[in-house]
Amino acid sequence: MKRNVLIIGAGGVAQVVAHKCAQHNDVLGNIHIASRTVEKCQEIVDSVREKGSLKTAGELQAHALDALDIEATKALIAKTQSQLVINVGSPFINMSVLQACIETGAAYLDTAIHEDPDKICETPPWYANYEWKRRELCAENKVTAILGVGFDPGVVNAYAAIGVNEYFDSVSDIDIIDINAGSHGHYFATNFDPEINFREFTGRVWSWQNSQWVQNKMFEVKRTDDLPVVGQHSSYMTGHDELHSLSKNLDVPNIRFWMGFGDHYINVFTVLNSLGLLSEQPITTAEGLEVVPLKMVKAVLPDPASLAPKYTGKTCIGDIVKGKKDGKDKEIFIYNVADHAEAYEEVGSQGISYTAGVPPVAAAILIAQGVWDVQKMVNVEELDCKPFINLLNEIGLPTRIKDADGDRLLSF
Amino acid sequence: MKRNVLIIGAGGVAQVVAHKCAQHNDVLGNIHIASRTVEKCQEIVDSVREKGSLKTAGELQAHALDALDIEATKALIAKTQSQLVINVGSPFINMSVLQACIETGAAYLDTAIHEDPDKICETPPWYANYEWKRRELCAENKVTAILGVGFDPGVVNAYAAIGVNEYFDSVSDIDIIDINAGSHGHYFATNFDPEINFREFTGRVWSWQNSQWVQNKMFEVKRTDDLPVVGQHSSYMTGHDELHSLSKNLDVPNIRFWMGFGDHYINVFTVLNSLGLLSEQPITTAEGLEVVPLKMVKAVLPDPASLAPKYTGKTCIGDIVKGKKDGKDKEIFIYNVADHAEAYEEVGSQGISYTAGVPPVAAAILIAQGVWDVQKMVNVEELDCKPFINLLNEIGLPTRIKDADGDRLLSF
Repeated sequence: MKRNVLIIGAGGVAQVVAHKCAQHNDVLGNIHIASRTVEKCQEIVDSVREKGSLKTAGELQAHALDALDIEATKALIAKTQSQLVINVGSPFINMSVLQACIETGAAYLDTAIHEDPDKICETPPWYANYEWKRRELCAENKVTAILGVGFDPGVVNAYAAIGVNEYFDSVSDIDIIDINAGSHGHYFATNFDPEINFREFTGRVWSWQNSQWVQNKMFEVKRTDDLPVVGQHSSYMTGHDELHSLSKNLDVPNIRFWMGFGDHYINVFTVLNSLGLLSEQPITTAEGLEVVPLKMVKAVLPDPASLAPKYTGKTCIGDIVKGKKDGKDKEIFIYNVADHAEAYEEVGSQGISYTAGVPPVAAAILIAQGVWDVQKMVNVEELDCKPFINLLNEIGLPTRIKDADGDRLLSF
Repeated sequence: MKRNVLIIGAGGVAQVVAHKCAQHNDVLGNIHIASRTVEKCQEIVDSVREKGSLKTAGELQAHALDALDIEATKALIAKTQSQLVINVGSPFINMSVLQACIETGAAYLDTAIHEDPDKICETPPWYANYEWKRRELCAENKVTAILGVGFDPGVVNAYAAIGVNEYFDSVSDIDIIDINAGSHGHYFATNFDPEINFREFTGRVWSWQNSQWVQNKMFEVKRTDDLPVVGQHSSYMTGHDELHSLSKNLDVPNIRFWMGFGDHYINVFTVLNSLGLLSEQPITTAEGLEVVPLKMVKAVLPDPASLAPKYTGKTCIGDIVKGKKDGKDKEIFIYNVADHAEAYEEVGSQGISYTAGVPPVAAAILIAQGVWDVQKMVNVEELDCKPFINLLNEIGLPTRIKDADGDRLLSF
């Protein structure tokens, strides 16, 4: 049975989600895109039509919506008869949109954890602060809610579960590595909204080590890996969503997340941060003007959406899993490589938006097909991840595995 | 005969000038301090009284003055019966203050070249664009005007003239080196107003080489010297006032200025400059607020005046002079070393303000004594520099010379 989709958000990831839903509207039905600025939704609608992404005839409409307004969101779900809501808006709206889904019975999918605008890096596990408080309500209302089903979190959670379930007797370490080896050609730019981007790096870094939460500072712990296709890259231990569910759902004592940064990025970040230019607190100039430094820095940086047309190179994101199999030490790397220029050619966004936007569409298809229509709240690793990996192989994000037997496509 | 002094400006250099004038008010007479913000002048007056710097009883008063208003400046000169005007205000007021001196007959002294707020790095020689256009008028009115009589320009011009006149048959190279080996203890700070400080480095670098003007970019040409007291330091070819008079007044084919910068300073400067954060052109934030980036950077940086109490270490500024004497190659280094903490202890300012503020007081004393009362406009190298060096030895800025015969105090 077809299920209509309501996409909330109108940024680079929403653009990918819309194109991918359109490519599969024989399964997904009508597509509606809503955000505060209806013009941005309309631009995505126009882009989908221009590229001829709709597989079959079907509705494709833009809507204005303040997604913090639960009643307005419920009304739009009802009016558009949407059974699937893909939330790729700001991380501040998750709980409102989830509530609207619970009250209307629509399935809920998102790609990043809920955030309170006034708080950075709350107490772990982060999901317990907001989303998981609605688990019982979802189950009572038979609402399917799949949390964090982008690439990271999302696909990397599936890689972790598959590693644990298929390749080991026991797993000691999961290291999730996210490397963007692409080039945007500017002196410095962030790949998404600088305000959100820098929030990830100005607080504490939580990791799961020896089965407990450990705190570090950003750029304190570094590793260097020689990775498939992209080669040798350094990455830094970073706080990230997926650790906060994997640590609960998998019996693995060490789970860490590593984000790749070049020396140049770190240097610019360090200078700006040290001078107080990444602060969200307003300062006053000698002339008496009140300014938030971070907002001015954002204004001088390139608009992330403007980077896509000239973005070249590839991303490599995956899980290094270590443990025991038949009494012996074993290590595997499950990963995907995506190409910025190919992503832009297909859906008009760069590779980072592409890797984040394709997985929730795969999840939506699996719900529509009844495979993942679990009628409760889950994180990705709690689901059967094999059909997810197989479907991603078909729709643009192939998974590979590298181990003692070589480097090959992973499918089931 | 005593000559009353009007000090224009109320920054760190004005603070030094006021203290030094007070220490010599048996020669200099009454002291008046004027700037737009009378409170800042009053703070200096209070500081002079607190430290008991006045040598003999005498007037010491603060005044409010817009020094761009020539009539107001003339009126204040008349009212205070000042015969000496020491202009250590912003570089934008030189021509107005000079005009007021010409019309009242007061002697004029400054420590930096005139600047037009809308222009950076004009055509050389810079003095010809503004100051030198009044040479004839000064001579006609028998007005003594000594241009650029701080440390650099100023004392280093005297060093150049003494090198040429006393130690060589012919001079091929004068390299003026300015090293601040002090530490203010902050991640980053400028030693004077960031808006003025960064202006020096964002334009072209003019130097005098093979008897003609040569252009470079900032941080393009580097040298490293092992200097007395402060040790090994790197410096970069920088555009600076003194080249624009020395090139005319001395028969020396190569005259260059080198400013010392640490790698950290250059890195922070490069990041800010590359991102557009040092721009004087307003930008608009996503929220519609119009902001001049440089003014916001200034607001997050430490107030230069706040650095003095904790400043430690020393400055070393001097001239490396190379040429021929009795048919042989010869090289000398004439220099001063100043100490930040000692300067603060004596006059409540750090060493950079101290080196800039003591020389114009020495010049004022020499005018009052009749030694430098030349009744025309001159740059320092056109005067007899020996009494200037001797006086500076006595009042806080001793000159040393280092050559084949060793390293010793220089006096005449």
